[in-house]
Amino acid sequence: MPQNPDIPLILATASSTRQAMLRQAGLSFEAMPAHVDEAAMKESAQAEGRTAAETAQALAGLKAERISRRFPGALVIGSDQLLVCGAEWFDKPANLGEAARHLERLSNRVHVLETACCVCRGGSRVWQFSAAPKLVMRKLSPSFVAEYLAAEGEEICSSVGAYRLEGLGSQLFSQIEGDFFTILGLPLLALLGYLRQAGVLAE
Amino acid sequence: MPQNPDIPLILATASSTRQAMLRQAGLSFEAMPAHVDEAAMKESAQAEGRTAAETAQALAGLKAERISRRFPGALVIGSDQLLVCGAEWFDKPANLGEAARHLERLSNRVHVLETACCVCRGGSRVWQFSAAPKLVMRKLSPSFVAEYLAAEGEEICSSVGAYRLEGLGSQLFSQIEGDFFTILGLPLLALLGYLRQAGVLAE
Repeated sequence: MPQNPDIPLILATASSTRQAMLRQAGLSFEAMPAHVDEAAMKESAQAEGRTAAETAQALAGLKAERISRRFPGALVIGSDQLLVCGAEWFDKPANLGEAARHLERLSNRVHVLETACCVCRGGSRVWQFSAAPKLVMRKLSPSFVAEYLAAEGEEICSSVGAYRLEGLGSQLFSQIEGDFFTILGLPLLALLGYLRQAGVLAE
Repeated sequence: MPQNPDIPLILATASSTRQAMLRQAGLSFEAMPAHVDEAAMKESAQAEGRTAAETAQALAGLKAERISRRFPGALVIGSDQLLVCGAEWFDKPANLGEAARHLERLSNRVHVLETACCVCRGGSRVWQFSAAPKLVMRKLSPSFVAEYLAAEGEEICSSVGAYRLEGLGSQLFSQIEGDFFTILGLPLLALLGYLRQAGVLAE
C-alpha cells in the first residue's frame, strides 16, 4: 500500500498484537519497546488521584516521547491500555492462580479498557486519542474458569484480564461495546485517520 | 474446552472466516455448505418487498434447515449477511473492475451489514438472532482504490463490499459501530450464549 517513504514510522511497543494489527493494515514501520517503568507510574498516578484514562494517556505519551527524542525525524506511535473494573485497576496476572482470581473478580461485571494512543515527532506530542470500550463478562463457574485456564496455559498471563478475545476469550463475554481494534490495544481507525492527515498514508 | 459430546454441532457454511471464528473460540464442529440458490432468493425477496434483515434471516434459516433435516440429532448453525447501502443490496463483486465500482458507491457513505444467525434441530428453527453493524467508509480517492485493489488482488472478490476488515480493509473506514465478530459474519457472543443455554457449552 502507498506510504510516504520520507516519514519513517515507529511503533513504541513490544506488543505483538499491536504490531500485527498495523502490519495487517498494510503499514511499514519499525517496532521498538520504550522501557518505561509502568508499575511505578501507575502507582504514583493512583496515589495522586489521577484517572485511569489520564494515566493510560500519560503512559502512551511517555513511551512515544522517549523514542521520539532518539529519532526526531520519525512519527512515533505510543499506546497504552488499562483494565478498570469498579475502582480497581488490573495488571497482567503473575501466574495462573492470580489469573483465576482476576477472572473471579471480573465475572458477572462490566469492565472498561481505557485505551490511549499518542503520536510524537521531534520529541513532542502531535496527536492523541482515547477510547474506552466496555466489556460485560458473564457469570463464570469456578469449573469453567479452571478448564478455560488449563486450555489457555501460562501464556494467558501475558494478557491483562487473562483473556484474548481473538481466542477462547470469546467464551467469557456476554456483550462487548466498542471497536475490536481498540479492544486489542490500538484505536486503529482513528490512528489511520491521523496518518492520512499527516501525509504518511494516501487518501 | 468442555463441550457436550452428545450434541454434535454443524456449521452450515463453506465460509472459512466463520469456521475460523468458531474454531478460535474453542468449539468442535463439522462444516457443511448448504447449497442454497442465494441469488434467486435475494431477487424474489426484493421483488416481494422484503427487508434485507428479513431476507438474511430467511437465508440463514434455509441453510440450517436443509442440513438439519439430514442430521436431525445435531444442532445446525446457519448464518447469512447482506450488505445494504441506501436502497441498494450488494453482492460479491464478479471481478476487480466491479470491486472498484462497488467501492466508489460505498465511498463517503454509511452501510449496514444485516447479519442473521439461526440454529435448527430436527429440521426446525430453535433459535435465531439478528444484528446490523454500521460502517462508515471514508471518502476514497480513485488512485487509492486502484492501489488498494492491486494490493489485495482477485481474492478480494470473495468478500462482499470488496474489503476484509482484518486486512487492508481497515484503511477504508473512518468509523465502525457494532461488534467485530458480527461484522465478520457471525454474532458469536449471542450464539455462544445460546449454546450454553442449550447445554452444548459449559457455563
